[in-house]
Amino acid sequence: MNNFVFQNPVKLIMGKGMISELNKEIPSDKRVMITFGGGSVKKNGVYDQVKEALKGYDTIEFWGIEPNPSIETLRKAIELGKKEKVDFLLAVGGGSVIDGTKLIAAGLLYDGDAWELVQKRFITSDTVPLGTVLTLPATGSEMNYGGVITRKETKEKYGFMSHFPVFSILDPEVTFSLPPHQIACGIVDTFTHTLEQYMTTTGQSRLMDRWAEGILQTLVEVAPKIKENQHDYQLMADFMLSATMALNGFIAMGVTQDWATHMIGHELTALHGLSHGHTLAIVGPGTMRVLREAKGDKLIQYGERVWNITSGTRDERIDAAIECTEKFFRSVGLTTRLSEENISGETIDEIERRFNEREVAYGENGNVTGAVARQILESCI
Amino acid sequence: MNNFVFQNPVKLIMGKGMISELNKEIPSDKRVMITFGGGSVKKNGVYDQVKEALKGYDTIEFWGIEPNPSIETLRKAIELGKKEKVDFLLAVGGGSVIDGTKLIAAGLLYDGDAWELVQKRFITSDTVPLGTVLTLPATGSEMNYGGVITRKETKEKYGFMSHFPVFSILDPEVTFSLPPHQIACGIVDTFTHTLEQYMTTTGQSRLMDRWAEGILQTLVEVAPKIKENQHDYQLMADFMLSATMALNGFIAMGVTQDWATHMIGHELTALHGLSHGHTLAIVGPGTMRVLREAKGDKLIQYGERVWNITSGTRDERIDAAIECTEKFFRSVGLTTRLSEENISGETIDEIERRFNEREVAYGENGNVTGAVARQILESCI
Repeated sequence: MNNFVFQNPVKLIMGKGMISELNKEIPSDKRVMITFGGGSVKKNGVYDQVKEALKGYDTIEFWGIEPNPSIETLRKAIELGKKEKVDFLLAVGGGSVIDGTKLIAAGLLYDGDAWELVQKRFITSDTVPLGTVLTLPATGSEMNYGGVITRKETKEKYGFMSHFPVFSILDPEVTFSLPPHQIACGIVDTFTHTLEQYMTTTGQSRLMDRWAEGILQTLVEVAPKIKENQHDYQLMADFMLSATMALNGFIAMGVTQDWATHMIGHELTALHGLSHGHTLAIVGPGTMRVLREAKGDKLIQYGERVWNITSGTRDERIDAAIECTEKFFRSVGLTTRLSEENISGETIDEIERRFNEREVAYGENGNVTGAVARQILESCI
Repeated sequence: MNNFVFQNPVKLIMGKGMISELNKEIPSDKRVMITFGGGSVKKNGVYDQVKEALKGYDTIEFWGIEPNPSIETLRKAIELGKKEKVDFLLAVGGGSVIDGTKLIAAGLLYDGDAWELVQKRFITSDTVPLGTVLTLPATGSEMNYGGVITRKETKEKYGFMSHFPVFSILDPEVTFSLPPHQIACGIVDTFTHTLEQYMTTTGQSRLMDRWAEGILQTLVEVAPKIKENQHDYQLMADFMLSATMALNGFIAMGVTQDWATHMIGHELTALHGLSHGHTLAIVGPGTMRVLREAKGDKLIQYGERVWNITSGTRDERIDAAIECTEKFFRSVGLTTRLSEENISGETIDEIERRFNEREVAYGENGNVTGAVARQILESCI
């Protein structure tokens, strides 16, 4: 186990009807800007619940934070928030709205252009306090301090670290009406977040291994059932809690992390607009294929504990574990190959070029360079 | 899954040499009272590490917080702390020192007698900030807001809830020199904390079940190895992290809890001075035996996932799961029967009387009355 420091102060408020607790969490003298994505919250009743809970509050609304939130949109929100002297933010939406609002929270107290904050990577300056009402289980943003922002003009997509939300409200009922494609992406995103912190080497922490496997086992169990009945409260609650727990630091204590799949996936989104979770369904199995030697022991443990693969040679067991993973991603309803999305070698060239230009190397061993990213993507054709 | 609110702001600092980080965590202008148990920290180097890290700080020391910390001792600490105008507390020890120091933290800002605070059960008034350096993995007190205090004159032992520590430092190396009996009690305490939040009914939360089982599986795996080599860093780190994670709320989200074993165990400690973990090794299997009907489905899940019990009739599987549990507690080096500790029917009479007098009923179904406690204890003779 590596030395580590863990702290996560987010107040997690989970359950049926919990949006009505909003007024216990936001001081009544605050001027609140509520941020939204598109209009789905007006259809599923979340908007009405939020407005009802905040009756009597001084609120303004900012609409239109898009999937893969763009700096172009967020600049407008920051401008509005500054003009209106907002001193509390409430993000109502999925990971994109929450990620975007984390940048707004920092931008409201920053004099320069907000893209500079993204480029800093670690935002340590003060931010406006932020609460969230989560509508889409996937990114874990509701209980961590990270965010990912896209710059449309340059087709760039980068992560940054900032401050935790003060609270997050999770009502599993709000997920009943989500489009199946979003559920599918959310499941793969959660699965892949877990793998990024788990699929490295064995023997780092027995407990963290078990907890990561616990998330994976839960997803494997609930995914086909959710496909049958997206209105089952217990199922959706299990999925929603898993998504939050997959990226809030709880399974990352003292262990190394990978994140190569995410970094390559971000490029696919930036270049082709593919949903984030969908890019992971394509790249994730490729990362396993190309790095199967370094990750071999862990792939075998994963195969045994998550997929019940207990016989065969070492190579057969590793093959089977990777195949189970790709099949699982397909079973939730996503494609897993670049060719299925008409993504060609030019994209692979461009991603290799970008990695090389930035002189980056990802993965737990810091060896996923542009050339290795190319190998991974080529294995996903 | 039941609705729940979760928040745990403790900063967990874990690893080799991390005690040296103390001066980053305590503001240098604080007047710090460091609290200790007996003298073991002087033998194992912890005392020296703490003093070295706090060079230049204005500190006083309070020694002698005993196992099952007594209100009689803590009153003296509060008196000293008030006189010395202490404004930061550092608990260096195991669960007893930390529990006791939580009461000191409240008592320093309270005008009445500190036993009144224990009787309140929920301390909501201000407390002096408290950090900890953990020396014995067991109670989880380093990352929760509870404590248990004994009143010697009346042989009473009660729990209370107060504030979280600000930070806790866990260096697995400090456990290398612990007496094997304390390790054994710590393992059983951790195991039983997990069971209190798990051994109820199935189907409440797939993820919380997996995480609880993950702690149990880890303990089952490391316990015999620790007996062989208590100086193995990875083993002790796994154990130490498990102990903290077993009682910090992480496995309690949205699920019901039992705690009957603990409440009966506290009485055995209060009446006979038995180590806390040891009482759980005796009472825990008894709770399973007597409540085997209500807990049946969960006992079967537990048997399968933790002990690999996959065949036999329902009753046989339940029997086997309970037997495995008792055998495990014996394997770490503890007795599991009242008769082995010369505890007789008079004690059972007294515990039944106390439960009845207090008109309490514990357990996830609120049905562990004095009469049921008698049944449980009689099954442990």
